[in-house]
Amino acid sequence: MPSPLEYAQQHRADHLAELKDFLSIPSVSTQPAHAADTMQTAVWLAESLKAAMLENVAIIPTNGHPLVYADWLHAGPNTPTVLIYGHYDVQPVEPLEEWHTPPFEPTVQNDFLYARGASDDKGQVFIHVKAVEAYLKTHGRLPVNVKFIIEGEEESGGASLRAFIPENKEMLAADVALVSDTSMISRDQPSIVYGLRGMCYLLMDITGPARDLHSGSFGGGIDNPLNVLGHIVARLKDENGHILIPGFYDKVRPLSQEEREVLSRLPLDEAAWLAETGAPEAWGEPEYTLVERLGARPTLDVHGIIGGYTGPGAKTVLPSTVHCKLSMRLVPDQDPQEIAQLFQEYVQSIVPPTVTVTINGRGGAPATITDRTIPAMRAAVTAYEASFGKKPVFMREGGSIPVVGQFQEFLALETVLMGFGLPDDRIHAPNERFYLPNFYRGIETSIRFLTGFAQLES
Amino acid sequence: MPSPLEYAQQHRADHLAELKDFLSIPSVSTQPAHAADTMQTAVWLAESLKAAMLENVAIIPTNGHPLVYADWLHAGPNTPTVLIYGHYDVQPVEPLEEWHTPPFEPTVQNDFLYARGASDDKGQVFIHVKAVEAYLKTHGRLPVNVKFIIEGEEESGGASLRAFIPENKEMLAADVALVSDTSMISRDQPSIVYGLRGMCYLLMDITGPARDLHSGSFGGGIDNPLNVLGHIVARLKDENGHILIPGFYDKVRPLSQEEREVLSRLPLDEAAWLAETGAPEAWGEPEYTLVERLGARPTLDVHGIIGGYTGPGAKTVLPSTVHCKLSMRLVPDQDPQEIAQLFQEYVQSIVPPTVTVTINGRGGAPATITDRTIPAMRAAVTAYEASFGKKPVFMREGGSIPVVGQFQEFLALETVLMGFGLPDDRIHAPNERFYLPNFYRGIETSIRFLTGFAQLES
Repeated sequence: MPSPLEYAQQHRADHLAELKDFLSIPSVSTQPAHAADTMQTAVWLAESLKAAMLENVAIIPTNGHPLVYADWLHAGPNTPTVLIYGHYDVQPVEPLEEWHTPPFEPTVQNDFLYARGASDDKGQVFIHVKAVEAYLKTHGRLPVNVKFIIEGEEESGGASLRAFIPENKEMLAADVALVSDTSMISRDQPSIVYGLRGMCYLLMDITGPARDLHSGSFGGGIDNPLNVLGHIVARLKDENGHILIPGFYDKVRPLSQEEREVLSRLPLDEAAWLAETGAPEAWGEPEYTLVERLGARPTLDVHGIIGGYTGPGAKTVLPSTVHCKLSMRLVPDQDPQEIAQLFQEYVQSIVPPTVTVTINGRGGAPATITDRTIPAMRAAVTAYEASFGKKPVFMREGGSIPVVGQFQEFLALETVLMGFGLPDDRIHAPNERFYLPNFYRGIETSIRFLTGFAQLES
Repeated sequence: MPSPLEYAQQHRADHLAELKDFLSIPSVSTQPAHAADTMQTAVWLAESLKAAMLENVAIIPTNGHPLVYADWLHAGPNTPTVLIYGHYDVQPVEPLEEWHTPPFEPTVQNDFLYARGASDDKGQVFIHVKAVEAYLKTHGRLPVNVKFIIEGEEESGGASLRAFIPENKEMLAADVALVSDTSMISRDQPSIVYGLRGMCYLLMDITGPARDLHSGSFGGGIDNPLNVLGHIVARLKDENGHILIPGFYDKVRPLSQEEREVLSRLPLDEAAWLAETGAPEAWGEPEYTLVERLGARPTLDVHGIIGGYTGPGAKTVLPSTVHCKLSMRLVPDQDPQEIAQLFQEYVQSIVPPTVTVTINGRGGAPATITDRTIPAMRAAVTAYEASFGKKPVFMREGGSIPVVGQFQEFLALETVLMGFGLPDDRIHAPNERFYLPNFYRGIETSIRFLTGFAQLES
């Protein structure tokens, strides 16, 4: 009988084929047109968990997209339980014309699998499904108890899981959470993220005249919401990346000298990183390093503006209402609700009387930090080193995984962020991809983590 | 035999029905999808000119939409010639959902005719076609020579007519130009516009990273073109309406004390004017009156911005390229090319090295002023007074009619701007309309102008 690792190596072609099936269903949770697709993805995933010999597989209805649950709990009462989290929903694919291959027709080119969700997060959560399958199909058992909770709203606010966790503490009880939804710092440098930024997402609408006006007849006598929007945006963040909202930085926990030193040792190749973005140069708060700016400092970005006439040709209009989406990435100990309130108060204090501004929240989450010394962290270090041939580094990641904060708050769980993505995976952008050697090494790392964690805890 | 005025009064129902036909063809010149409609409109108009007994009717092909020409030149060699200009193209109709009746199904409600182009400019140019018809169908002749030149690109840059005028000076030679493409100050106060603002329209694209980036992974380390756009817009015009481009005001001809007094006597009802816009309050350069700001001062307005994710829900993206349309309204003696150059130099001087900005022109025209004392102006005053029962006021209009400057430059023509629109006609906006009593009184005013101008010049 093969070992779980041998099983995983022998079934690489099957695992890739299954992942392509998973990726071919357009589970864009934020777009109502894809609601049925998102449900179909949950069904597909549940069947896949059952085929991996997991038990108690359930599609749990919510007010939004369903949760998918499965477990295997026969490792014994004195054996720890790992709660594996991931999400089966994906980001929108627009602008579609920038994709070189269709986003929901997964395509392998060289060592990369191209598809929306390949890295974020279908490819990464599927790693653990296949690791568990490798154990159960060979040994018939797992070295630890395992629970899966996989949501379908990570890219659209996560409201259903957020409501579910506090109501189902017993069902989700575990000793540690394991999440693969982050990136390694480079292809040959495994990385464990121990800090995640939080998030406060807002929609801002600015209304001036009651209808679009002709800029010849009214220009100079009626204020223009698009010009006002420019003034507001310019007063949110200065040209050096400092956020201008009063009180915004008040609760930011200063970086310790020890942590700045850990972060300064991260082998980030700035030139390669910049080349991957295609931007003319890096940028940000001059008093912080690039690594600190990307993971350990809060920021504010406008994500979308639409207003006025944006079709072909020229139209001379003073628009009535213009729309803006933006978010602030947060660090410990900023509170998303408090930040939303500070934003609201500040913008209302600077907005001229010629327009009205309405601001609505679209979800938020605090930043999180995991203790780097707990047994599960040590098991992760060992598993990475054995699978990738190199000791992982610790890093802070700029993205947000709101559920990590909820696991901490409601289930008292620390989370191991075992990422297998790469910085150039183009998540949330056209031509998202997953580096296939990381898919296969990821399955091996997950197998070794389960083994090693059981030994450390026994 | 009826007089021309009696003929016009007897044929009101016919004239309205014909105008509705004219308005029902969607001649949106700036949108390629409406190219065939625009051509069909030219054909309809040519047939209508022929039916009015005009001669030498011609649809003149261009690189864009055709020009329509017609004349009647039998008034005698010592009789003056009037060149009547208008445009048969219309603005786009978006946002379509804000129209209460379909924009190309002309609908009469109370005294208003609702349709795209009803006021700007199909309804107004048609006034003169019907005035000429009234003369020719009754007297068999006109008191002056008349030429019509009607273009199909006024709303999309006017390139074809701009190229045509200098090449066809003989064909267009006349003693004065007559244009109805402006508004009266109020329903019972006829107004003659003697000054028009010019225009410089620009497209500005800002590119940062080569592709859309995830704002969690890259936010704080890569500059965001939407934030940069905000900073640029904020530095174009201050919150009091002063344009910040160095040199922008250098060539602005100061308003004389006499002209400020003429303008101060204009009976603009500011409260009614503001109510019509639906804006919370009026706005603009504090050192100028509202009438001055609207017609006699230059300004700058952003007309459209699109960038990043603007679909439903939340997406956290640092966009690669964002797009902005804007224009500056100009006054004598600002030069549109020079202003475009100043804009370009200023923006390139303030843009950070983290993005690249490209700026492209979409047409421009200088401002124009007509001498208020020439015979045609006096004829217009008399004609308005007889038809509306009130002496017209002189005013400056904030919109731009580029052809007026070209008539001055290439044909040495002064232009009488005999407007019959109203400030609340909603041109360029949803629910454009034309006040039908002005359509009928306009035909009478045009008939009286032709009669009176012949007498003054004889």
